[in-house]
Amino acid sequence: MKNLLVAQSGGPSAAINATLVGVVEKGLADQNIDKIYGAKNGIMGILTDKLIELNDKLADPETLQLLCQTPSSALGSCRMKLSHWEESTFEYDKIIKVFRKYNIGYFIYIGGNDSMDTVKKLSGFCERMHIDDIKIIGAPKTIDNDLMETDHCPGFGSAAKYVSTTMSEISCDCNVYAQPSITIVEIMGRDAGWLTAASALGRLNGDTAPDLIYLCERPFFVDQFLDDVRAKMEEKHSIIIAVSEGIKNEEGDYVTDTLKDRAVDAFGHKILAGASRYLEEILRFEIGCKVRSIELNVMQRCASHVASASDIYESRLIGSAAADYAISGGTGKMACIKRTSTKPYRFEIDFVDIDQIANQVKTVPDEWINPAGNDVTQEMIDYLLPLIQGELPCTYKNGVPVHLRLY
Amino acid sequence: MKNLLVAQSGGPSAAINATLVGVVEKGLADQNIDKIYGAKNGIMGILTDKLIELNDKLADPETLQLLCQTPSSALGSCRMKLSHWEESTFEYDKIIKVFRKYNIGYFIYIGGNDSMDTVKKLSGFCERMHIDDIKIIGAPKTIDNDLMETDHCPGFGSAAKYVSTTMSEISCDCNVYAQPSITIVEIMGRDAGWLTAASALGRLNGDTAPDLIYLCERPFFVDQFLDDVRAKMEEKHSIIIAVSEGIKNEEGDYVTDTLKDRAVDAFGHKILAGASRYLEEILRFEIGCKVRSIELNVMQRCASHVASASDIYESRLIGSAAADYAISGGTGKMACIKRTSTKPYRFEIDFVDIDQIANQVKTVPDEWINPAGNDVTQEMIDYLLPLIQGELPCTYKNGVPVHLRLY
Repeated sequence: MKNLLVAQSGGPSAAINATLVGVVEKGLADQNIDKIYGAKNGIMGILTDKLIELNDKLADPETLQLLCQTPSSALGSCRMKLSHWEESTFEYDKIIKVFRKYNIGYFIYIGGNDSMDTVKKLSGFCERMHIDDIKIIGAPKTIDNDLMETDHCPGFGSAAKYVSTTMSEISCDCNVYAQPSITIVEIMGRDAGWLTAASALGRLNGDTAPDLIYLCERPFFVDQFLDDVRAKMEEKHSIIIAVSEGIKNEEGDYVTDTLKDRAVDAFGHKILAGASRYLEEILRFEIGCKVRSIELNVMQRCASHVASASDIYESRLIGSAAADYAISGGTGKMACIKRTSTKPYRFEIDFVDIDQIANQVKTVPDEWINPAGNDVTQEMIDYLLPLIQGELPCTYKNGVPVHLRLY
Repeated sequence: MKNLLVAQSGGPSAAINATLVGVVEKGLADQNIDKIYGAKNGIMGILTDKLIELNDKLADPETLQLLCQTPSSALGSCRMKLSHWEESTFEYDKIIKVFRKYNIGYFIYIGGNDSMDTVKKLSGFCERMHIDDIKIIGAPKTIDNDLMETDHCPGFGSAAKYVSTTMSEISCDCNVYAQPSITIVEIMGRDAGWLTAASALGRLNGDTAPDLIYLCERPFFVDQFLDDVRAKMEEKHSIIIAVSEGIKNEEGDYVTDTLKDRAVDAFGHKILAGASRYLEEILRFEIGCKVRSIELNVMQRCASHVASASDIYESRLIGSAAADYAISGGTGKMACIKRTSTKPYRFEIDFVDIDQIANQVKTVPDEWINPAGNDVTQEMIDYLLPLIQGELPCTYKNGVPVHLRLY
């Protein structure tokens, strides 16, 4: 009998705890597993021997359900990359020592790109050192949806549902006056525009926003942008624009870098303005009407009260599959969602070598952005649509959602 | 038989269409009413003869239900104050002419302070001119909760539920890393801190945010603020602060005015920074840890997918009561919610003379703010709690909420 260890890493999402639930459920059900441990704050918690036993804490289905509706990482998170073991095995020796102390046979690491780098290095180290009784599997998680080899990433669907729902509500809000106005909505994604693209789903039921969409994959030209805005304002008095936080100019520099070079705050520091603030200033200067900028900020990654049912379902399933695969002897891989059909939506879970995934970014295919670079195509809509389907009952108490704390 | 006219004005809310539904329901059911008209963009639509007939558009219960879950003003809105009729009757003559053209006997104006000013002036004009066959009643609406004479305002409860729900989720999100961090959440309210106070409800189920709360009613001292933050950071590594957008210094100037005097953007313009941005810069300079600022922006007033059931119920009821009161011959008043008991929560609707309401602001009582000025008291919690109770089924299609468009 071996023990199972699970940890979470990277930025919060509304679904990462559903994957944790999947891992724990498998561990509780499998007769090869004795104890299930969770490491606090990802790999940092393993390095510092901060493990907590989960068997009793997560024994009943009601608690697991509450954990599923708790956003962010219930075990805590970190943003940490291991050093290369070829250079120093210090961290690795520490980790293996903790694994041995707790008799860990299986380690599931839930996270994004940095976490998959950890899976790659740690499983590579074990292979090199002929440590073959510790199996390490990655479970994907990122609202950026930018991990390779998986059709999409757990957490993305819920973020996309929040973005599209909110966009449809902003559409009602910002079209209410007769006066001309422009609203810019900034959406997370520095290198991949998937989540910004999901704003297009806000139009599915007849709401009109967004009128223009700019992803970070295409170079951003201010002149073209102003032309687009002026053309839309000819058609209607109030327009709403969705923009990736990571839009860059032709040289590949963030457009906000231009602003930062010039703007200073009350203390003489450069202003840390976002893309929407930058565009707000440009539009106010060049167009002159009422302009508002909105950052969806952390809400887009933690609004679990409006999570996508299909995302939570898949996230839970992928956690369970990852644990199952490790217990069956698999290591050095990430659980991936393989879409087998879009209409009707069908998928299966397979496991892909971690070397094909770690430290890479899956960006939006150019052909899913329209030729003018200010909207997405129907292929993109078809791809996104299944990921935001379904609503979950959310348990409220005192009028506010209930969240589970593990420590 | 007379016709009934309804219009909406002021800023959007998640409940203003529920009040419209209440008015329409009463009009449809009352045998004294022939047609029900809605004016586009509030009083502006009356001045410009832009009325639409609502009887057929809102004939079935399913459509009314969809309208209840549609945020913002389905009839459009405006921000317009009538001139004084003692100075010029031009606008008033135009309005009465349109009323006569459409045989309007009853006019319900749903809105906040500016709208109640319109109710006051228009009913005053009718009284002075002995026009006694047109009855004018105000129905309150504002997420700011700052109208006099009513225990609370329709729309506030839903905004409060959004703020508390979001605060509980931000609590999960921002406490996830082991590193020290400060998060500032800016909440709407320039003159009244009710909605900022509602952030305290985010703690009801054990989430810890907000750690500090600053309302715009108390003067804001930067030094005291820094002392508060430093003291909290001694207790815990990650803290979350709720702040009214309208916090002012001892002289009564918005704290952001200080910043605007000094900060310039890429075009040499003064930066239109919010309170949270201002505090973010101060904290980054003075404390030096990771600081994030979040504006809940328009989402706090339009997130109808997480509306408060009790707010939507009361909003609908107050619309119906306002129409009923007008049809019964009442005029020059606003429908008010009178709380008769807090535990258990009970209320009734009464009608208060509009002169006691228009152009005044109900701020938070000083005794509902703690002595240190950085939190609210239990009396405030008791007052707020009933207003966010209950969740409503929201109709989704394609994974996104369905909204109703009236034109």
